[in-house]
Amino acid sequence: MSLLQRVLPATAWMRTYERGNLRADVSAGLTTAVMLIPQGMAYAMLAGLPPIIGLYASTVPIILYALFGSSRELAVGPVAMVSLLVATALTPLAAAGSAEYVGFAVVLALLVGAIQLAMGMVRAGFLVNFLSHPVVSGFTSAAALIIGLSQLKHLLGVEIPRSHHIHTIVIAAFEKLGDVQPYTILIGAVSIAALVILKKRAPKLPRALIVVAGTTIAVWAFGLADKGVAIVGEVPAGLPTPSLPSFESGTLTALLPTAVIISLVGFMESVSVAKAFASKKRYEIEPNQELVGLGLANLGAAVFSGYPVTGGFSRTAVNAQAGARTPMAGIVTAVVVMGTLLFLTDLFYYLPKAVLASVIMTAVFGLIDVAEVKHLWKVDRADMSLLLLTLAGTLSLGIEAGIGLGVGASLLWFIVQTTRPHAAVLGRLPGTVAYRNIERHPEAEQFAGILILRIDAGFYFGNVTFLKDLVRDSLLKQAQPVHTVILDASSINRLDSSANGAVGEMARSLKETGVQLLLAGVKGPVMDALKKAGIYDDVAGEHPHLSVHDAVEGIMTSPPDGGGEQHESLIRNAS
Amino acid sequence: MSLLQRVLPATAWMRTYERGNLRADVSAGLTTAVMLIPQGMAYAMLAGLPPIIGLYASTVPIILYALFGSSRELAVGPVAMVSLLVATALTPLAAAGSAEYVGFAVVLALLVGAIQLAMGMVRAGFLVNFLSHPVVSGFTSAAALIIGLSQLKHLLGVEIPRSHHIHTIVIAAFEKLGDVQPYTILIGAVSIAALVILKKRAPKLPRALIVVAGTTIAVWAFGLADKGVAIVGEVPAGLPTPSLPSFESGTLTALLPTAVIISLVGFMESVSVAKAFASKKRYEIEPNQELVGLGLANLGAAVFSGYPVTGGFSRTAVNAQAGARTPMAGIVTAVVVMGTLLFLTDLFYYLPKAVLASVIMTAVFGLIDVAEVKHLWKVDRADMSLLLLTLAGTLSLGIEAGIGLGVGASLLWFIVQTTRPHAAVLGRLPGTVAYRNIERHPEAEQFAGILILRIDAGFYFGNVTFLKDLVRDSLLKQAQPVHTVILDASSINRLDSSANGAVGEMARSLKETGVQLLLAGVKGPVMDALKKAGIYDDVAGEHPHLSVHDAVEGIMTSPPDGGGEQHESLIRNAS
Repeated sequence: MSLLQRVLPATAWMRTYERGNLRADVSAGLTTAVMLIPQGMAYAMLAGLPPIIGLYASTVPIILYALFGSSRELAVGPVAMVSLLVATALTPLAAAGSAEYVGFAVVLALLVGAIQLAMGMVRAGFLVNFLSHPVVSGFTSAAALIIGLSQLKHLLGVEIPRSHHIHTIVIAAFEKLGDVQPYTILIGAVSIAALVILKKRAPKLPRALIVVAGTTIAVWAFGLADKGVAIVGEVPAGLPTPSLPSFESGTLTALLPTAVIISLVGFMESVSVAKAFASKKRYEIEPNQELVGLGLANLGAAVFSGYPVTGGFSRTAVNAQAGARTPMAGIVTAVVVMGTLLFLTDLFYYLPKAVLASVIMTAVFGLIDVAEVKHLWKVDRADMSLLLLTLAGTLSLGIEAGIGLGVGASLLWFIVQTTRPHAAVLGRLPGTVAYRNIERHPEAEQFAGILILRIDAGFYFGNVTFLKDLVRDSLLKQAQPVHTVILDASSINRLDSSANGAVGEMARSLKETGVQLLLAGVKGPVMDALKKAGIYDDVAGEHPHLSVHDAVEGIMTSPPDGGGEQHESLIRNAS
Repeated sequence: MSLLQRVLPATAWMRTYERGNLRADVSAGLTTAVMLIPQGMAYAMLAGLPPIIGLYASTVPIILYALFGSSRELAVGPVAMVSLLVATALTPLAAAGSAEYVGFAVVLALLVGAIQLAMGMVRAGFLVNFLSHPVVSGFTSAAALIIGLSQLKHLLGVEIPRSHHIHTIVIAAFEKLGDVQPYTILIGAVSIAALVILKKRAPKLPRALIVVAGTTIAVWAFGLADKGVAIVGEVPAGLPTPSLPSFESGTLTALLPTAVIISLVGFMESVSVAKAFASKKRYEIEPNQELVGLGLANLGAAVFSGYPVTGGFSRTAVNAQAGARTPMAGIVTAVVVMGTLLFLTDLFYYLPKAVLASVIMTAVFGLIDVAEVKHLWKVDRADMSLLLLTLAGTLSLGIEAGIGLGVGASLLWFIVQTTRPHAAVLGRLPGTVAYRNIERHPEAEQFAGILILRIDAGFYFGNVTFLKDLVRDSLLKQAQPVHTVILDASSINRLDSSANGAVGEMARSLKETGVQLLLAGVKGPVMDALKKAGIYDDVAGEHPHLSVHDAVEGIMTSPPDGGGEQHESLIRNAS
């Protein structure tokens, strides 16, 4: 990959851009734009900002991400989570909707952009390695549930307060069942049915665009807006003009903590969404490049009177479902939004909110990944538990806390496992030079006086006590006297100073009881560590043993105590 | 080890107790008692309690620990750290020294005892595995400095406020240089000189007892107490009577948070001190047994009008230096304290505080472990940094924060390392079946069309991206076309579901580019994980390869594309 392609990933996909992609990208970009316009306005209102700010945030930032980001499907723009965080941060500082409040939001975008760009440049994107697959899957399913259910109010045509508690939403919906809007439900039901059927029967059609256009025309033709169907209504016209945000240094200090939180949460949400879609299409997301792309998008939002943006969940799903193949779809979205701001705001007047809710719901509910839970039930119960923990945590505590819980529990579980590694007593597979676990291979031969152990772990301070106990207990369990313990070191990947000391101690204390400790198949880095500590010569035997077999042969030809009678091969069945 | 020996370790050492140990144990127990009496009183005062409470805490609790604990040298009783924590917790609740305050301290001992006993019974002692050797060494050196310098005021005979900031103590000492007591300094200097010389020339003599007795007689004979030398003075007489502490349930709730902190910090301090001395004498400390021993000691303190105790730093050093060989030394200490409470309180009247300071200082300064820093500089720079970080953290932030910092940094470093594991391209050592890093063994043979990789790590979510990149980059670096990648799986100790998925993905995407991925020498647990995920058959080749050599031979006999011309062995020098 050339430097230019690394810095500006757009040069790669633009050079190889095929005509066939264009139709898909335009359709997806258009569909996403059709969702983005009312959503951007709604999320801006959620953030306490005038609706137009949400549209401004959906222009230049999207183009900047399309040029610098590494995802093909990610739909950047205003999102619910970040909008909520903005509202929480700014409400104590100024009156919602005031010029001062809007100014703060712009400064927040500037700070978020600067932080993300800096993180990308120091390559801090490796942090998302700790978002394991089970954690991303659990969080995705939970977020899909929360976002999907948040659209219930638009489908039913009733007021339901925003919440991430599923039961709160469901109870509120039940309480309001008497107030539901029949025409609204009809539009929602028809839209969902159409989306599901079109997906199965005609997956290549721009189904979101079709239902959006169809229902808008129906609302206009039958005058449904007068019959209680909620519509998007008036959208103000005109493009944002570039300007540098002005602020006092005190503002920066006040907004910095929130900016850090939005930077991290926005990045994590965005990159996990991007990863989820990239893994379906088997390409890689480069986290540091994502940080650069999102950082520049936020700086763009700051210059073009927007507010903090990130890669959104539901629109990315719609964008991908609508067939987005390259970031060109994003550029199309931005151009459509800009065109709309200039000329077409009237067209969205009769667009019913219920159809947007249907699009979001069918998109995100497809992301609830029950198959992954079933798969992990078979493959890895611990990872399944981590998935369910993240899911439950996100539903009960919110998205940030849910992700935090999942990552924390994953790391804790990883560390706990390293403290009690798997270990095996080895025997020689007859007729080979391979040594395997005698419990799995009862036919494996053992040799009188020799105990061969394999401990599947990097040796470090966290498992030193366990390892010492294990060697001691394994020795005690032997029915025959043992003169040599061979440790298969091919599975020892590292050795810190605590473990180094422990190996030396073990060798010495075994020697005192007349048992020699040999390490066979020691790897380079471990050998270096042992040599530096001056232990290597004690545990390498007369010459470094390349393998367990090598060590066993060495003992056979020159037995340690001259006790030749001990050295006939003894086949002992492990059962 | 029998059940009785596990529950009551005293049965083991008592049965094999040798007459020769008795003299050493009595001498050590006596010396420790001589230190403990004034120290216990001083620490009780530090905790805001009447001095006599410190002596009460030095009777039955010590005997209980001697019977149930697993350390031979650990001197249990009042310690500075826990005393400080008690004062911090109780000062807001009652007037220092009042009956109510004393009652709270007793309840605190009850709670700490219950918590530690419960932790020991659920075997939560494994938590101290995370106290790595560098962390213990760093904390020990720092604590030795802090405790040693805290004695400076007694050596100089001036008032210096207690602090864990070395510079504060040193500056205060310099400021007070004009007020120093000449006779006090003389006693301190002579004591230190005597202790150092006796340690070298006559290490078997009870040197602490000798200097304590000598200086006490000197103070009495020359009337130095009237010439400004600080003495221990009046010690009140009488044994504590057993009684159950009385309290309201509200008190329990109020004291619970502090009790949890004291339980953990006390246990950590105690067990790291015990471990340090045990490792010198090469025996094991059983953390869960320590929790039981300390828990019972604290319950004993609650019943016998004491306050929270734990294994102390300086007295353990003195106890070990004075030759303690078994927990009998602790029993002797307790008996001496009890005897003293009954009959001998007058004897300690003229004991100069400066000689106790000398004993503490010479004991703890010996624990400042510069050799370990030098050793780690050679052996493991990362561990050396962790040691120095813990040392600096303890000196600047205090003991709990210092330990916390050290443990946190150790775990973080451990995790960071697992995300970028060592990897090597392997070649066959000529004339053997062993495959080794071609960079370390330039003579190793490589085979045309085959890339053999060894990645020294458990594969898990934290390094999945790194591993995929590594395989891809290694392939790109090959000058010759490659048809098979062999992964030496003998170093793969574990495989979580993220890694499992990544191996499957790698196999598929390599296959698409005409390269087969083979895993050789797969271990049982990893094989199980691969089989469950349905990936094993794809990466095992036609039959499971027991070793890299096995896999190479398999390819040689049945080449993947029938392209026999590719399969002559090619010796390529890695330089």
